[in-house]
Amino acid sequence: MIVVLAGGVGAARFLQGLVQVVPQERLTVIGNIGDDRDFYGLHVSPDLDIVMYTLAGVVDETHGWGIRGDTYYTMQQLTSYGNEDWFMLGDRDLATHIHRTNLLHQGKTLSEVTEDLRRRFGLGMHILPMSDQPVQTHIRTPAGLLHFQEYMVKRRCADEVQDVVFVGASEARPAPGVLDAIKNAEAILLAPSNPIVSIGSILAVPGIHDMLHEASGMVVAVSPIIAGAPIKGPADKLMSGLKMEVSAVGVARYYRDFLDVMVVDEQDAHLLDAIEDLGIPAVATDTIMRDAAAKAVLARKVLEAAGLQ
Amino acid sequence: MIVVLAGGVGAARFLQGLVQVVPQERLTVIGNIGDDRDFYGLHVSPDLDIVMYTLAGVVDETHGWGIRGDTYYTMQQLTSYGNEDWFMLGDRDLATHIHRTNLLHQGKTLSEVTEDLRRRFGLGMHILPMSDQPVQTHIRTPAGLLHFQEYMVKRRCADEVQDVVFVGASEARPAPGVLDAIKNAEAILLAPSNPIVSIGSILAVPGIHDMLHEASGMVVAVSPIIAGAPIKGPADKLMSGLKMEVSAVGVARYYRDFLDVMVVDEQDAHLLDAIEDLGIPAVATDTIMRDAAAKAVLARKVLEAAGLQ
Repeated sequence: MIVVLAGGVGAARFLQGLVQVVPQERLTVIGNIGDDRDFYGLHVSPDLDIVMYTLAGVVDETHGWGIRGDTYYTMQQLTSYGNEDWFMLGDRDLATHIHRTNLLHQGKTLSEVTEDLRRRFGLGMHILPMSDQPVQTHIRTPAGLLHFQEYMVKRRCADEVQDVVFVGASEARPAPGVLDAIKNAEAILLAPSNPIVSIGSILAVPGIHDMLHEASGMVVAVSPIIAGAPIKGPADKLMSGLKMEVSAVGVARYYRDFLDVMVVDEQDAHLLDAIEDLGIPAVATDTIMRDAAAKAVLARKVLEAAGLQ
Repeated sequence: MIVVLAGGVGAARFLQGLVQVVPQERLTVIGNIGDDRDFYGLHVSPDLDIVMYTLAGVVDETHGWGIRGDTYYTMQQLTSYGNEDWFMLGDRDLATHIHRTNLLHQGKTLSEVTEDLRRRFGLGMHILPMSDQPVQTHIRTPAGLLHFQEYMVKRRCADEVQDVVFVGASEARPAPGVLDAIKNAEAILLAPSNPIVSIGSILAVPGIHDMLHEASGMVVAVSPIIAGAPIKGPADKLMSGLKMEVSAVGVARYYRDFLDVMVVDEQDAHLLDAIEDLGIPAVATDTIMRDAAAKAVLARKVLEAAGLQ
């Protein structure tokens, strides 16, 4: 089994490559839930949904989230009732959140709900939320502690980042199967997701970080930072807010205590020495996942770096 | 203040007449919640919504329920997740149920939620649910006890009616303001709604029936049965299941212990004597609310019967 620690869009696209080169049944995705938030009393799990929608082929490719061709009638009406309107939830997308919330209220765990949705979408891979307990990523800013979605979507990353706090993480437990999956994996791949708020939140769940040390499989990360900037999202602002170098070297340093191989973009080949100076073997390749073929090539390279091909 | 005990479509159309002849602020609607049911974990209050949507001018006139021009994308997606699909909930309509459920989960009462929605729809009348506690109308049939919506919508009134049970009614209390509104009303009007499952459910809330005796205002009912049949809905099946005569006389007999005047359709003028034999003065007029003018004429007739015009 190959384990992938996954955030949202970057992870989903990376997984689109992996499923071309290994059977879905050989993959276990451990998904970030730090971005989860309730809207209108409905439990929204953006990263889990992006992964599922993308692999099921229904994602809105333009946004990278939501369902292709979705409409916004429910949200328009909700807004007319005085509800907030800064987080776009389409009508079809809302069905996912209604269904999830209903099952959670019936006493099902987030793992069970995720498994139900995975099956409904006909996906063969295993998808585990990092925890069945809530962990909510907050950004400390001069304006106060903001939920990550408020920082990113509502306030468009405009606030200075002073710290990142994973509220609830210390009381959370890894979801059933998470630790075993890491322990027994042939390889553990860290998707090119935001290292702080996508991967970092997963690592913040007690037991997961330690298990990466114990795992017998190689741990390989793909840098989401290319030529000093992320393809998408606020990784640069978060990293610099935390006084990290905004580069593949900065990412490698963040993962250094458990990382076996770092994969960086070919534009960052000049950084290989600096990463190897950290004691981490590094590989440069084309990591820009512009189409299905490029995704497959990257997947093969990463598996090769993990000693699997 | 004029009080109207109200079910769904018939009551909403009757109210469309009343608002033409008296200021909305002079009306207090006491709405049936016996038809309420959770769908997908969302609290749906069909009768309250029909009244609000109709008076706000957004109702789907063809169905008599839902919002005009609504779409069904959320429900289609919910169905693809294995959820039931026999109760049609449009995308805009779902916003009402999401909003209501969210406020209820936040600890607001159904009265408070109803007041919030009334205000959002810009309605001037008072709208009170009969109770803030759940009362669920069930139909006893050879197939077992069915929630009213299952009996009516899912199974299309096909089951033999053996009894009608208002589950929860004995523990329910009238919502704040209900008893005072009845006690102090200039008149209490029973809309041409289903006497058993729309008005009967309201009467089943302890205190409401007794207060109709104490009320100083006249109690006037409009028969929903015209020439032996209801305009819409299963009133005939329910009445005959309960061994009641399916006629304006049967309705008058059901209300007889508190009713001051019965208004019947002119097609039933031959029944006036039979109703008066029950000790209830009766009036015949055109009760078929085919257009705005006919609704206003009926409203004036009913107010006149109540001694108000």
